[in-house]
Amino acid sequence: MKIVIVGGVAGGASAAARLRRLCESCEIILIERGVEPSFANCGLPYYVGGEIESRDRLLVAPVERLRQRYRLDVRVRSEVRSIDRANKTVTVANLATDEVYEETYDKLILATGAAPFRPPIPGIDREEVFELRGLDDADILHAQATSQAKSAAIIGGGFIGIEVAENLVRRGIEVTVIELADQILTPWDPEMVRPLQQQLLAHGIKLLLEESAEAFTDRGERPGMRIQLQSGRSVDADFAVVCIGVRPESQLAVDAGLECGSRGGIVTNAHQQTSDPDIYAVGDVVEVTDFVTGKPTQVPLAGPANRQGRIAADHLLGRDARYRGTQGTSVVGFFGQTAAMTGQNEKMLRRQQTRFEKIYIHPTDHAGYYPGAEQFTLKLLFDPDSGHILGAQAVGTSGVDKRIDVIAMAIQANLSVFDLEEAELCYAPQYGHAKDPVNMAGFVAAGVIRGDQPVIHAESIDPSTAVEDFILDVRSRQEHEAGHLAGATNIPIEELRDRLSELPRDRRIIAYCQVGQRGYMATRLLLQDGFEAVNLSGGYRSWCQMRCHDGNC
Amino acid sequence: MKIVIVGGVAGGASAAARLRRLCESCEIILIERGVEPSFANCGLPYYVGGEIESRDRLLVAPVERLRQRYRLDVRVRSEVRSIDRANKTVTVANLATDEVYEETYDKLILATGAAPFRPPIPGIDREEVFELRGLDDADILHAQATSQAKSAAIIGGGFIGIEVAENLVRRGIEVTVIELADQILTPWDPEMVRPLQQQLLAHGIKLLLEESAEAFTDRGERPGMRIQLQSGRSVDADFAVVCIGVRPESQLAVDAGLECGSRGGIVTNAHQQTSDPDIYAVGDVVEVTDFVTGKPTQVPLAGPANRQGRIAADHLLGRDARYRGTQGTSVVGFFGQTAAMTGQNEKMLRRQQTRFEKIYIHPTDHAGYYPGAEQFTLKLLFDPDSGHILGAQAVGTSGVDKRIDVIAMAIQANLSVFDLEEAELCYAPQYGHAKDPVNMAGFVAAGVIRGDQPVIHAESIDPSTAVEDFILDVRSRQEHEAGHLAGATNIPIEELRDRLSELPRDRRIIAYCQVGQRGYMATRLLLQDGFEAVNLSGGYRSWCQMRCHDGNC
Repeated sequence: MKIVIVGGVAGGASAAARLRRLCESCEIILIERGVEPSFANCGLPYYVGGEIESRDRLLVAPVERLRQRYRLDVRVRSEVRSIDRANKTVTVANLATDEVYEETYDKLILATGAAPFRPPIPGIDREEVFELRGLDDADILHAQATSQAKSAAIIGGGFIGIEVAENLVRRGIEVTVIELADQILTPWDPEMVRPLQQQLLAHGIKLLLEESAEAFTDRGERPGMRIQLQSGRSVDADFAVVCIGVRPESQLAVDAGLECGSRGGIVTNAHQQTSDPDIYAVGDVVEVTDFVTGKPTQVPLAGPANRQGRIAADHLLGRDARYRGTQGTSVVGFFGQTAAMTGQNEKMLRRQQTRFEKIYIHPTDHAGYYPGAEQFTLKLLFDPDSGHILGAQAVGTSGVDKRIDVIAMAIQANLSVFDLEEAELCYAPQYGHAKDPVNMAGFVAAGVIRGDQPVIHAESIDPSTAVEDFILDVRSRQEHEAGHLAGATNIPIEELRDRLSELPRDRRIIAYCQVGQRGYMATRLLLQDGFEAVNLSGGYRSWCQMRCHDGNC
Repeated sequence: MKIVIVGGVAGGASAAARLRRLCESCEIILIERGVEPSFANCGLPYYVGGEIESRDRLLVAPVERLRQRYRLDVRVRSEVRSIDRANKTVTVANLATDEVYEETYDKLILATGAAPFRPPIPGIDREEVFELRGLDDADILHAQATSQAKSAAIIGGGFIGIEVAENLVRRGIEVTVIELADQILTPWDPEMVRPLQQQLLAHGIKLLLEESAEAFTDRGERPGMRIQLQSGRSVDADFAVVCIGVRPESQLAVDAGLECGSRGGIVTNAHQQTSDPDIYAVGDVVEVTDFVTGKPTQVPLAGPANRQGRIAADHLLGRDARYRGTQGTSVVGFFGQTAAMTGQNEKMLRRQQTRFEKIYIHPTDHAGYYPGAEQFTLKLLFDPDSGHILGAQAVGTSGVDKRIDVIAMAIQANLSVFDLEEAELCYAPQYGHAKDPVNMAGFVAAGVIRGDQPVIHAESIDPSTAVEDFILDVRSRQEHEAGHLAGATNIPIEELRDRLSELPRDRRIIAYCQVGQRGYMATRLLLQDGFEAVNLSGGYRSWCQMRCHDGNC
């Protein structure tokens, strides 16, 4: 069998390697536009910043190894220009020689990936406006980062934008991040990233939210530019990096009449077959099924791309391999902070009008009595009836990716918050808790579903309606005095039983503490005494993340 | 309702707190033999070693807080001497005043824990022979560790023995560990802990395996002793700590006629009810059901104890809460190393004559191209037909507990290795791999089940039978020369296709590389060409862990 793969890196190279392992007799042609068919694209920002010192480290599988070990017919600097499905051929252009030729295939795998989106803004084609997709981009940015350049503007505060921002700061460059949304890292919910935004500011990054570039113009001196913003403000920078997001590079598929989705991704079945069963597609170029909602979506991630490559190879060779859908499990780290997530976020659930409940906890990564424990925030989204887990997000300095990975596994198994209660995870004081944060999230969520603990969320509390609701701070006086909700009455939890007469029986009581635990205790106590009571989920800490401008009031 | 809880710490204190949250009107009496009903027993070794500097940090919930916040009737230094089930009373002795009185109960919860086993060895009652269970033991050991004592013998190389050993080394004490088995940390399989044993030696600990103490005698000078060993050798030490293991403290239950198991643990149903439905038992004193085998066992762990306390409280108050069984998920850390595990180990599976297969991988904790990647070893045990996951173990310096937690969640969900293949976990180069070690373990195990990759294990290779089998080292010449299996022929993977004529078609070929990946490639290649071939799982690295005396040949 003769298989042509268009595009390397995660999806294409995985498919090629898997094909060779399963089929020694197959002719496998890997056509790659760039110079290297398999490089560590997730490592590019760290090469720019110098964390990865040697460029060679980015070459996951050098061409020679692919040729020798996997006996692949690797053709670099080659571009597939068109597909002739009737004759099962592709037209290939050798970019080095400009030679154009036909290549036949029995099966074709499209792994063309996704290209950075460059909006049609005046001046975006200036020579100091870059992007970061391939090794060549990394080389250019590396040169910029180690040049005399003093300032940079990052257009877009997503994964790559923030990673590039951190790495340019590491190089001593003044960085401004310009983001259209009201938050960075939009796969997370806004309250979760607010502390991260503070970290950017703390490291000298200028962060402009709800702001967009309207034009890249001269600034009088060269090199460099003035970026005109929609608000009328402007930012001067020696260079700019456009990291607005990516679009599936599916033109080849469109031209060949293959079915594509509304966001441009190639539509495939669970075997990664396109609407032409002899053509497979994998990686960032395909539309995927959201594991939680079952709906089509576009999620460019390396893990899914790798597995899709493998599945396409398996199915192409007659095996019944199926892709299960994408959960969107992601992690990003910068300045010692980690943000991780899996499944749906709250914004998506609201947009889809899915019924959900959520809880926040602020546990430490390991037992508080052992040195070095670091607090992080975990948000769990779940079905308010069945407890089915819909998504989770965590942000902090330590133990963050571990908990999200565990919950990602739980989502894959279609588990509920009641299963998280019973999870049996590693515990020694350096590593976790006898009641791990995953258990705690399960306890709290299950408590909400069982009615043990009605919760209210910070965004639902209007401080001006303290007339309607009675806001009860059950923390210590000291904690109360250090900062509290407007209009709150302070009765420490230890005194609550003896001071119930001070509470109104005709108004709802919103109890809160620092992170939610004493508030829960208070809520239980009040409910059992006949009061109407709710607990502020995540306590004062969540309140601050949600309601205070700096996320840390 | 009046509830008496016998014993604090994990199980008892959890039950008490949960009871109060659910039932404000209940009378809850917590009877504790020691001074503190809720302390961090897993932290004791680290207080002895000084990693936890302040003793106060060990007090999870001081008595006053339990009294004020939870309004518990806490009676410390009090011992329950007997249970009168007919009259529903317990006899309590106040250890401070010697007063003995009766206390009635509606429901009784036994959380008496497990006591260190002290074998009847002559001299074991010497004053320099200690154990580590309670705060008082920790105080004594802390005093020893900061005294003039120069040497210590640890009897038993389990969790506590090794943790104490590490912490005494931290205090500058010369430590000898005496362990009856042929390995430390017997919940893991021997090949997994061999590198850890090397770490103990590297840190100056003298490790005596397959050795036991026969008598503690005088050594001529005081303080101190000579420990006579079964082999005839002896060890001199200023003090000794007996950490042989624990036995359920179930005498109270036995005397009251409650059903106990063959290992002494109190038998309960899934609601934690003993054979007397008004008496519950939780924590280290109960027999648990092994989650994987469904058989009764005894597993003293803090996590299960906490959850059992909660479940007993729930059920006692009329809720349908059920304990699902114990997976044995554990972690231990010392000298920068981490060992974690969940489910059954190979020894247990062999003992039970359960059909199983296993694989080893040696991935890095995060992408190798990002600085600081550390290699660890992961062993996966699974049903060779269904792929059902039976257990997993991992050992290394980083990323170890995360992967075991993910697999623990998978075991709870009764998942198979085919599900691990599809796990979607966090990936950025600082945190993991696009194909996470959990995926890789799934790929390799699934490959074995599908027949893509027959494996052989180091213990099944007899180097002297290289006549029967052809041993093929597909690593580079340099790697081969640095150390290889006796009788192995070296053909680097890149040259294999062109040198197939050098291989015998009438003998089985055992292919191997460094960690198993190139060996897999070679196995695929050979099988497809009609050879009989198997891959050495985990490669040369696993061979060394399994077969070389120092685990690191």
